[in-house]
Amino acid sequence: MKRALELARRGLGYTAPNPMVGAVIVKGGRIIGEGYHSRLGHPHAEVEAIRSLIEDPEDATMYVSLEPCSHHGRTPPCTDALIQSKISRVIVALQDPHPKARGGIAVLREAGIECHVGLMEVQSRDLNHIFFDSLRLRRPCISLKLAQSINSCVAREDGSSKWISSPEARKYVHRLRGAHQAILVGVSTVILDDPRLDSRDFDMSRSPVPVIMDRQGRIPLKAGLLQNKETIVYTTASAENLLLAKLNGEISAEVVSIGSGSEGYPALWDLMLKDLYGREIRSLFVEGGAEVGSFLISEGLVDWLYLFVGPQIFAKGSLGGLSPAMEMSFQRHSLEFFGDTILLEGRVSCLPA
Amino acid sequence: MKRALELARRGLGYTAPNPMVGAVIVKGGRIIGEGYHSRLGHPHAEVEAIRSLIEDPEDATMYVSLEPCSHHGRTPPCTDALIQSKISRVIVALQDPHPKARGGIAVLREAGIECHVGLMEVQSRDLNHIFFDSLRLRRPCISLKLAQSINSCVAREDGSSKWISSPEARKYVHRLRGAHQAILVGVSTVILDDPRLDSRDFDMSRSPVPVIMDRQGRIPLKAGLLQNKETIVYTTASAENLLLAKLNGEISAEVVSIGSGSEGYPALWDLMLKDLYGREIRSLFVEGGAEVGSFLISEGLVDWLYLFVGPQIFAKGSLGGLSPAMEMSFQRHSLEFFGDTILLEGRVSCLPA
Repeated sequence: MKRALELARRGLGYTAPNPMVGAVIVKGGRIIGEGYHSRLGHPHAEVEAIRSLIEDPEDATMYVSLEPCSHHGRTPPCTDALIQSKISRVIVALQDPHPKARGGIAVLREAGIECHVGLMEVQSRDLNHIFFDSLRLRRPCISLKLAQSINSCVAREDGSSKWISSPEARKYVHRLRGAHQAILVGVSTVILDDPRLDSRDFDMSRSPVPVIMDRQGRIPLKAGLLQNKETIVYTTASAENLLLAKLNGEISAEVVSIGSGSEGYPALWDLMLKDLYGREIRSLFVEGGAEVGSFLISEGLVDWLYLFVGPQIFAKGSLGGLSPAMEMSFQRHSLEFFGDTILLEGRVSCLPA
Repeated sequence: MKRALELARRGLGYTAPNPMVGAVIVKGGRIIGEGYHSRLGHPHAEVEAIRSLIEDPEDATMYVSLEPCSHHGRTPPCTDALIQSKISRVIVALQDPHPKARGGIAVLREAGIECHVGLMEVQSRDLNHIFFDSLRLRRPCISLKLAQSINSCVAREDGSSKWISSPEARKYVHRLRGAHQAILVGVSTVILDDPRLDSRDFDMSRSPVPVIMDRQGRIPLKAGLLQNKETIVYTTASAENLLLAKLNGEISAEVVSIGSGSEGYPALWDLMLKDLYGREIRSLFVEGGAEVGSFLISEGLVDWLYLFVGPQIFAKGSLGGLSPAMEMSFQRHSLEFFGDTILLEGRVSCLPA
């Protein structure tokens, strides 16, 4: 199952809105086939594993990191392929929480295949936390990325902060971008940095959809992101210049008006997330500063935190970091060095303030 | 040499003001003797290794983590023991920076023993960083321990902070106390918590000397630390009540007056550190809050930082953390989990603000 999960991870950034899944077929203590779901619309892990077989799978066992599907979706049901293959046992890490996809185990058992569920369930759930959280919450899963000094400053007194993260960390951020379907930064960041928000240091083809929330239309019309037709700008009727520019064909980005302009940010975020979910966007990577980060924590909207911590303690007067209205805590987190920068990563939960 | 360094570490907390040293004797690819400096006044590592020999050491090589001494100190010179043993080669990690102790390699070479220096030098220097830094700086090496939330808060708005560190982390702090000769907290901490500052959760016999800097004599006369005759309280002539209580024999602690009361903290700290160095105290563990931490960083007085980071992000209004007048950075640091609390540990250096 460990191998199945390793294989599953190879689909990172390619399978959404599907989960990542891996499968390994074992007979007499040896692996005789393996596969993973490599890309949306491509065959599922079970089918790939069966196709890779180097021996007759009769009496063999399949280890698969998610319940095999029994429905016709983008591909035919995996349960059919399993039954035809004559594999005799299936070990499943986790039942599929998706209403359409679940039920595969029952189908296999009816066909006389022995099934066991629960081996490395936690690891499988963690691997696809975006998929599961999103289904449960009916909105994209939100990953917040922040970079701070040890004493939680986002920039020095003079505003300089480019040295908070090491080059290795900044490169890894491009990989994280590629693991999400959409990316959001605050309008202030667009105004200051005119960023591209792509995964160019990792794999350009996995660049996420840039998303901007710009209630009042403060974004400069010459911003690079507005010339990217993938970009979605959520705004309100009060952003007349922006809406006009779109009508006149001056910008390539999609502009979606979701309010009159009198709504507060929490209401607008709610509308934006619903719209993104409707577009099958399951994951939103927020590369905010401390301001958008504190807002999201205060609203209980952060599901996963990527916190890069540089080795410095900034001096008095530096720009402060997170100061949300709500308390938040890692439930479980891991650590990794990227050069001299530490990445704290894990699931977070908001606590009563 | 790796083994020699492992052995050396066993002396942690027992050898000060001497460094920790380990020695391994190898012949024909096999270890035939090993030892370490286990306690101040006990034999040095080289002598322990020679005493443990299970074979004739002729033609053998000794790996030793510090240059063998050639002077009569608390014990006879190690060079004598080495020459008598007929060991033919000595591999030394690091030359001894202590003016009295250096010169051993020259003595050995004169006696016809082949000597090489520099194998795992960095590791040997790190192991005894307290010893080397203290000699160089002519004051105790200062280790600052702090506990903070992810967003650098030392306590919640209501002052509650007992959950910042996990029980595992708090237990490890007792081990760290035991690795230092003296421990200091701010007077405010004494007033609030009446702490004992010992190593009871690790090894009571390695408890450090409690040190308090109390310029104005604010410490309550009934504080437990004042009834500990090991405690040293540095104060000034302005602390009349405290000085009087000492004269009247109401408190067991030593009270040292080092100023008139008009001096600033930097000057008083300078005097206190000189006095501690004169007492052969090479290491001071400061378990301060953010205030004493920020002061020490601002004065460039922190040599090693132990920063415990709990998994929480505290809400707006919580008590802030480090905010020094000077910028500081880890030069090299390591990470470890203690329950859900992370320890960032390493050498720090102050940078131009």
